[in-house]
Amino acid sequence: MKWTKSLIQTLRESPQDAEIESHKLLVRASLVRKVAGGLYAYLPLGMRVLKKIQEIVREEMDRTGAQEAVLPIMQPAELWRQTGRWDAMGANMFRIKDRAQRDVALSPTAEEEMTEVVKGMVNSYRQLPFTVYQIQWKFRDETRPRFGLMRSKEFLMKDAYSFDKDAEGLDRTYWIMYHAYERVFERCGLKAVPVQADGGDMGDSLTHEFHVLADAGEDGIAWCEHCGYAANQEAAGSMRAARQGEGAEKTVKYLADGKIVAVRVEANRDVNEVKLKRFLGAKTLFATSDAEEAERTVADLALGGEADLVLVKPGDACPHCGRPLAIRRGIEVGQVFKLGTKYSSAFGATYKTDELKEETMVMGCYGIGVSRTMQAVIEQSRDKDGIVWPASVAPYQVVISLLDPGAKEASETAEALEAQLEAAGIDVIVDDREERPGVKFKDADLIGFPVRVVVGMKGLQNGGVEVKRRADDKSKTVIVKPEEAVATIKELLQ
Amino acid sequence: MKWTKSLIQTLRESPQDAEIESHKLLVRASLVRKVAGGLYAYLPLGMRVLKKIQEIVREEMDRTGAQEAVLPIMQPAELWRQTGRWDAMGANMFRIKDRAQRDVALSPTAEEEMTEVVKGMVNSYRQLPFTVYQIQWKFRDETRPRFGLMRSKEFLMKDAYSFDKDAEGLDRTYWIMYHAYERVFERCGLKAVPVQADGGDMGDSLTHEFHVLADAGEDGIAWCEHCGYAANQEAAGSMRAARQGEGAEKTVKYLADGKIVAVRVEANRDVNEVKLKRFLGAKTLFATSDAEEAERTVADLALGGEADLVLVKPGDACPHCGRPLAIRRGIEVGQVFKLGTKYSSAFGATYKTDELKEETMVMGCYGIGVSRTMQAVIEQSRDKDGIVWPASVAPYQVVISLLDPGAKEASETAEALEAQLEAAGIDVIVDDREERPGVKFKDADLIGFPVRVVVGMKGLQNGGVEVKRRADDKSKTVIVKPEEAVATIKELLQ
Repeated sequence: MKWTKSLIQTLRESPQDAEIESHKLLVRASLVRKVAGGLYAYLPLGMRVLKKIQEIVREEMDRTGAQEAVLPIMQPAELWRQTGRWDAMGANMFRIKDRAQRDVALSPTAEEEMTEVVKGMVNSYRQLPFTVYQIQWKFRDETRPRFGLMRSKEFLMKDAYSFDKDAEGLDRTYWIMYHAYERVFERCGLKAVPVQADGGDMGDSLTHEFHVLADAGEDGIAWCEHCGYAANQEAAGSMRAARQGEGAEKTVKYLADGKIVAVRVEANRDVNEVKLKRFLGAKTLFATSDAEEAERTVADLALGGEADLVLVKPGDACPHCGRPLAIRRGIEVGQVFKLGTKYSSAFGATYKTDELKEETMVMGCYGIGVSRTMQAVIEQSRDKDGIVWPASVAPYQVVISLLDPGAKEASETAEALEAQLEAAGIDVIVDDREERPGVKFKDADLIGFPVRVVVGMKGLQNGGVEVKRRADDKSKTVIVKPEEAVATIKELLQ
Repeated sequence: MKWTKSLIQTLRESPQDAEIESHKLLVRASLVRKVAGGLYAYLPLGMRVLKKIQEIVREEMDRTGAQEAVLPIMQPAELWRQTGRWDAMGANMFRIKDRAQRDVALSPTAEEEMTEVVKGMVNSYRQLPFTVYQIQWKFRDETRPRFGLMRSKEFLMKDAYSFDKDAEGLDRTYWIMYHAYERVFERCGLKAVPVQADGGDMGDSLTHEFHVLADAGEDGIAWCEHCGYAANQEAAGSMRAARQGEGAEKTVKYLADGKIVAVRVEANRDVNEVKLKRFLGAKTLFATSDAEEAERTVADLALGGEADLVLVKPGDACPHCGRPLAIRRGIEVGQVFKLGTKYSSAFGATYKTDELKEETMVMGCYGIGVSRTMQAVIEQSRDKDGIVWPASVAPYQVVISLLDPGAKEASETAEALEAQLEAAGIDVIVDDREERPGVKFKDADLIGFPVRVVVGMKGLQNGGVEVKRRADDKSKTVIVKPEEAVATIKELLQ
């Protein structure tokens, strides 16, 4: 591929609205371009990355035996009403009326829709277990879209749904998917850690989130480096004993399903709203400064109360081993979730056992943020000059910086090398622009192709082309004869 | 792949709302499943077809040098207002308000969005020409969704946009895409014919539609089998001379941009509303039974008027050769279109010439209905028993009907053959259900896998497995030794 035909336009300046490095680099390297707040076009370079990540996800899903499908983005409101989520999803769900004034949601997720589709297609226990997945655009009406692809209004997700006979079956499927997720992120060159998480609106069962540890992450992760305990701060517990009346405390008021609740915690602690909501069994929870008296008062267990209602802090004792926890930041790139029968009951998704008894299927769901993973890779793999792509998801694995596009020997050498690399299954872009070497090197570093080959007349007269890994510094540049370049590049890409 | 793990559930009965054969077969073969009116889930079998068609489209686009991108489905209204199409698109465009009450369209097409994205990324004539395409879901608020995937509310389209320096460049690109389209449809096993069409709202320039000829088609195609002339009935002309006052005539009234227009045509002719709209230069046109007097009267040229305002009929004289035209039905699966500078002017999408003059880019656009192509293949390739897939886009190329899944020798033979076929790059599904042979054969024919292999104990005891092409009748069944089956199958798939 030639640079001049690839719609690449790098930028020197970062976009004004970019707060984190990966967002700046996405735009500067012309991987994406903003169309409006929270809406991004994937330019050819970014599209190549997105497709490579999709392909890895697909291969690992297929390897588990999961089947690919694709469901409509527009979902009739009736599906959501059947589980009560038409109301519960709130203002984050895009809603639309069609010309017949029927309510439609733009898919934020697809538990209801997939259960409805699968229902009636399964008769016998012999068809179970199975897992269906899709890679499809999802929508979320963010109050404040930010961080580029991290919190956008439209994003690409892989969502999978598993159907099992019983809880033991689901447990097996859950861990199969868990391990598939480990492979997906590893193959994307990511260090992603599974952490225990809270079920939220999705169900009340076992769930792990996969987080890429990065300072720019929106989630706090309670992390024990001694025993390996890792949990989303929202869900994390710690070992704490009830104190006897010593120390300052404070009261924070909440509106839980419309009723005022006072929450007593130690003065130096924050209320964990996720835990509080779950403890109260509330559907909605908002902090309030209402002066009216509370209808109910609850206390954190440190103050003699019955539940753990506070956010874990650095230094708190790990709930497993008692040693001090750290708090780290994480970007959530995936989640695996045991749903149980919440959705299959609501839709009557049943099967017949070998004794012809009608039973409800037991479900799990499994998400990967495909577009978000793209940005997480950048957040984790970059330096002061730009992105450092892992070879598996790089837009091109190799850039040939052609310094003298006008000189026949140089351009022919580049052309031949391009053809040899392509024949070897290595994707390559030739920077054929009439630009100064400095501009070409800067752009190659900014976009972050794993291997750079410099082809110029000076080098050729000295007998070779320069080959260098993006991740290495200048001192590791090697000069090889053009006919040896492919072998050297192959080695460097390992 | 095993049948029992593939979420296949064929139906004996056709869905009530299915009017045409391909719609019935799509649902009966469990390729798709209706979620709501005009909204279809692609089940694993249908998804495999959809992906194969996408891959063919992608390969042929890439071969022309076009670059893949993907644009947001949600498009800010401002983009559409810049070309006046926010109003012109009418009720067929889904519109939504986000939480900040901003108007957003759900992409029905992307001329505006792509021009906005590309604008500012091109500086120099050296970057031209280039073509960007996407394969993305599109939306259309159909008054009456019908015919399955043919007229659905959500459908998968490939849309490409080309950017050239000038009209000559566009002409070259146009024909490159035209020929790429011929290859796409040919590789999908379709007989698609390019026909001249009307530009409609998209521009006023050269355009061809690619039609699959089929009785179920919604478009009329004027067809001259003598000289090869083919045009959409909406755009087709014919040789007709003005008559001198003989014969009956009729007057039909229209509301054109709110004004009543009377149209005089021969009594045995229908008004061609597309031609009329274009002739009047009207933005909106509706038939009306308003009794008020017309503000204007126009006449068809047969009645001495100045324009051809009627629909071509069978037997009319071909405008090229004068011999009688036939009218055939077509399913539109693609369109290529010269846009000129309509969109690039509106968005200021310019480039600098070699003399540093600022010029407006000249555009073309090129669509393929990917999901519609899937159904068009079925409409064109079926018999009384079901679908007859071309090997290139079949959900699986081979089905192994395993007659005795309980018998070790039979299941091992099937297993081995499955592995050998997969190793040879041939995709295969093993019907491992505990069902009668008749059920398996009926389902294999209904879904329409190109080659069927029957593996059963009786056959094996007689020394072989039965191999048969779906398209052939029973008499062509061959019996081969299991170890020779792969070679035979490869031959049949040629």
